[in-house]
Amino acid sequence: MNEIKLFAPGTIANLSCGFDVLGLCLDNVGDEMIIRKSKQKGVRITKIVGANLPLETEKNVAGAAALALLENSETDLGFEIEIYKKIKAGSGIGSSAASAAGAVFGINELLGRPFSNKELVYFAMQGEKLASGSTHADNVAPALLGGFALVRSYNPLDIIKIKSPDHLFASVIHPQIELKTSDARSILKKNISLKSAIVQWGNVGGLIAGLYTNDYELIGRSLHDEIIEPARSILIPAFDLVKKSALKSGALGVGISGSGPSIFALSKGEDTTQKVAKIMCEEYDKIDLPYEIHVSKINDEGIKVLNSKS
Amino acid sequence: MNEIKLFAPGTIANLSCGFDVLGLCLDNVGDEMIIRKSKQKGVRITKIVGANLPLETEKNVAGAAALALLENSETDLGFEIEIYKKIKAGSGIGSSAASAAGAVFGINELLGRPFSNKELVYFAMQGEKLASGSTHADNVAPALLGGFALVRSYNPLDIIKIKSPDHLFASVIHPQIELKTSDARSILKKNISLKSAIVQWGNVGGLIAGLYTNDYELIGRSLHDEIIEPARSILIPAFDLVKKSALKSGALGVGISGSGPSIFALSKGEDTTQKVAKIMCEEYDKIDLPYEIHVSKINDEGIKVLNSKS
Repeated sequence: MNEIKLFAPGTIANLSCGFDVLGLCLDNVGDEMIIRKSKQKGVRITKIVGANLPLETEKNVAGAAALALLENSETDLGFEIEIYKKIKAGSGIGSSAASAAGAVFGINELLGRPFSNKELVYFAMQGEKLASGSTHADNVAPALLGGFALVRSYNPLDIIKIKSPDHLFASVIHPQIELKTSDARSILKKNISLKSAIVQWGNVGGLIAGLYTNDYELIGRSLHDEIIEPARSILIPAFDLVKKSALKSGALGVGISGSGPSIFALSKGEDTTQKVAKIMCEEYDKIDLPYEIHVSKINDEGIKVLNSKS
Repeated sequence: MNEIKLFAPGTIANLSCGFDVLGLCLDNVGDEMIIRKSKQKGVRITKIVGANLPLETEKNVAGAAALALLENSETDLGFEIEIYKKIKAGSGIGSSAASAAGAVFGINELLGRPFSNKELVYFAMQGEKLASGSTHADNVAPALLGGFALVRSYNPLDIIKIKSPDHLFASVIHPQIELKTSDARSILKKNISLKSAIVQWGNVGGLIAGLYTNDYELIGRSLHDEIIEPARSILIPAFDLVKKSALKSGALGVGISGSGPSIFALSKGEDTTQKVAKIMCEEYDKIDLPYEIHVSKINDEGIKVLNSKS
């Protein structure tokens, strides 16, 4: 195999109670990437379509992730990467994670899979570090593994993949405002009450239990955030209204996607999910705020190979 | 059925990362209770063997729990309760919970099961309230449901029973010191860092995932407490030494049972569990501290009916 074309999916991190430890993989929301072997050692970003991102390997998220992998490989080969961005940067649905995960996944395929997908998470995190200044895994892990990914621990890195219940779908609305990750971070308090933390970890336990037992109602009851959402949601226009309407329309749970500004809702079945998406749009139509809307099954596979050339 | 004899099991609450939300049920550690119908309305504690506890119904944990149930029942019957205490009060393995859970379970059986075991948790909590001043469920829920119980939420009460992996055993050592629950409570800080809370809820997620997938290693890695144990363990003699030795001997994880002073270790298989129990005893032998030791399979059934008379 000399060339591979990939679908690199968007992801929803945090998932209400699961701040910094949980993420899920989307299905029809994502970038495309072409990665090909080259006789020239190293990594070159040869094309970027759909976004204004740096072509210099070290400054590019996909490039940085690819270099992290190659530093741990003994190959003499080099690689060229083309990126067709469809996920908007700053949307809160894992734009940089898609690029980082896609790069390491594609190179690993072309090298004959020396690393497991779980091992690739570490390399992809080095791309995320370039994008956000911190190595977080709750977007790259679900992008690489599919379904839900739990980051039990960062030190040492310990990732658990959890299969998604079959009928679980997401509606994600992206209001077209800019929300800096630094602002979304700085609004959080460094200390929280033990009481609210206990409520939060009860819900994390409930969410994980709901995923393993396909208990949609339990998943819904557990999608509750005592700590981050109350602080951060004030940065997102009409968050409370969108949430209330989505829940009224049958969503199991609603929260902030990543660090925002996108808002996600999880629902059982595609019909309900479409209905929830419609009502979310209506809330932003009312206040004339432009948005993008996505409806997606949870993608239990993760990154997909679209085609390959030998 | 006019009379029922029960085994009311001991329980381990908190389980390291699962402070206030997780508990498990022990198998061969527990009290016995006899509950019989009476034509005289109300509840009478007619016998207590093995402990110096109040016979007045309203002042007795079993009595208070039984009254809470009867207030929600339309029966004209009354009940007599005999309690044969084997779990020591203040041991940290759910002595009051066993009495409360046993009382409501037994009366419910004699009434023909008008309530589910999950519904009984609420009544048993009213007994716990008498014992500790707060209505907590992480001992009574596993006593009633068996296996592991997750208290996802207290308001509204939402309990999830999780089956125990088949080869999971506990060693519990009870150093014969008095540790007041009020002291164990007052040593905790009201506020904690968001950073440590995130580590904690990552571990709660990992522990629940490990239980559903019978992943003993994951259970072990997740049995880690960033918040409570570092503060509380200084109240327990030689805690660090006992923990270190137990882990060295093959325990998956070690922590404080309830609010102490008992220390629990979970292990895979009975042989390892016995070995771990032995080494825990040796640590207390070295400092001449008297103790009680228990080795028990996790009891997936909960309270057991020993016999009944019609």
